[in-house]
Amino acid sequence: MTKIPDDAVHLLEGQHLAHVATLQADGSPQVTPVWIGHEGDLVTFNTAKGRLKEKNLKRDPRVAISIVDADSPYVPLVIQGKVVEITEEGADDDINALAKRYLNEDVYPFRQPGEERLIVKIEPEKASYNNG
Amino acid sequence: MTKIPDDAVHLLEGQHLAHVATLQADGSPQVTPVWIGHEGDLVTFNTAKGRLKEKNLKRDPRVAISIVDADSPYVPLVIQGKVVEITEEGADDDINALAKRYLNEDVYPFRQPGEERLIVKIEPEKASYNNG
Repeated sequence: MTKIPDDAVHLLEGQHLAHVATLQADGSPQVTPVWIGHEGDLVTFNTAKGRLKEKNLKRDPRVAISIVDADSPYVPLVIQGKVVEITEEGADDDINALAKRYLNEDVYPFRQPGEERLIVKIEPEKASYNNG
Repeated sequence: MTKIPDDAVHLLEGQHLAHVATLQADGSPQVTPVWIGHEGDLVTFNTAKGRLKEKNLKRDPRVAISIVDADSPYVPLVIQGKVVEITEEGADDDINALAKRYLNEDVYPFRQPGEERLIVKIEPEKASYNNG
């Protein structure tokens, strides 16, 4: 396990989208943007049950994340790690908190009927914050 | 092979960073931001010889790309495909054209001494442009 560099933690607390790569069943990469956060040293994102990301991560927990601050786009935060937990616990509060942070909305506005939210928790194994 | 949807091509012609995922030797994903372009139906980016991306793509050509327009961040363009060519031919002109487009600089300002540039050409196999 590694720690996210102190001077990069703000990238997990702002309005920057993170691009999260997972592995498909055939081992090929898949990457999509997500809202990002952290719980202490674990990096977190919120997804919906049944999405491709959940299926991929339950099969193979390895993940990579790339985040850029629009104000300094040539200093990305790049993380490689593995998922250590996927949980419903707290996931509704978490998605609403993310909606507040990213959209200034009190309640997540994109929820589909019947959608169940999940928090994905990632242990970083490598993190670089430079021009790598 | 698939075509990038017509209404998404502007994402390959603007100032949006693309986040490109490749596979490490152990099969885990790696993802970093790049400047993005296209040559007809092929999606292209420019990298430097010897970088991790080149090594990864020569070992395994499978790649995934995520691009967001800051003006409509919840409609990402997400691509999966494979590298069909990595070439030095035209790569210096290409990186300068990208510097012009992204930075309004005539000459790429970040070149390191001795750095050789490469164009990576990707055949899209799946492309989605929606909230997926």
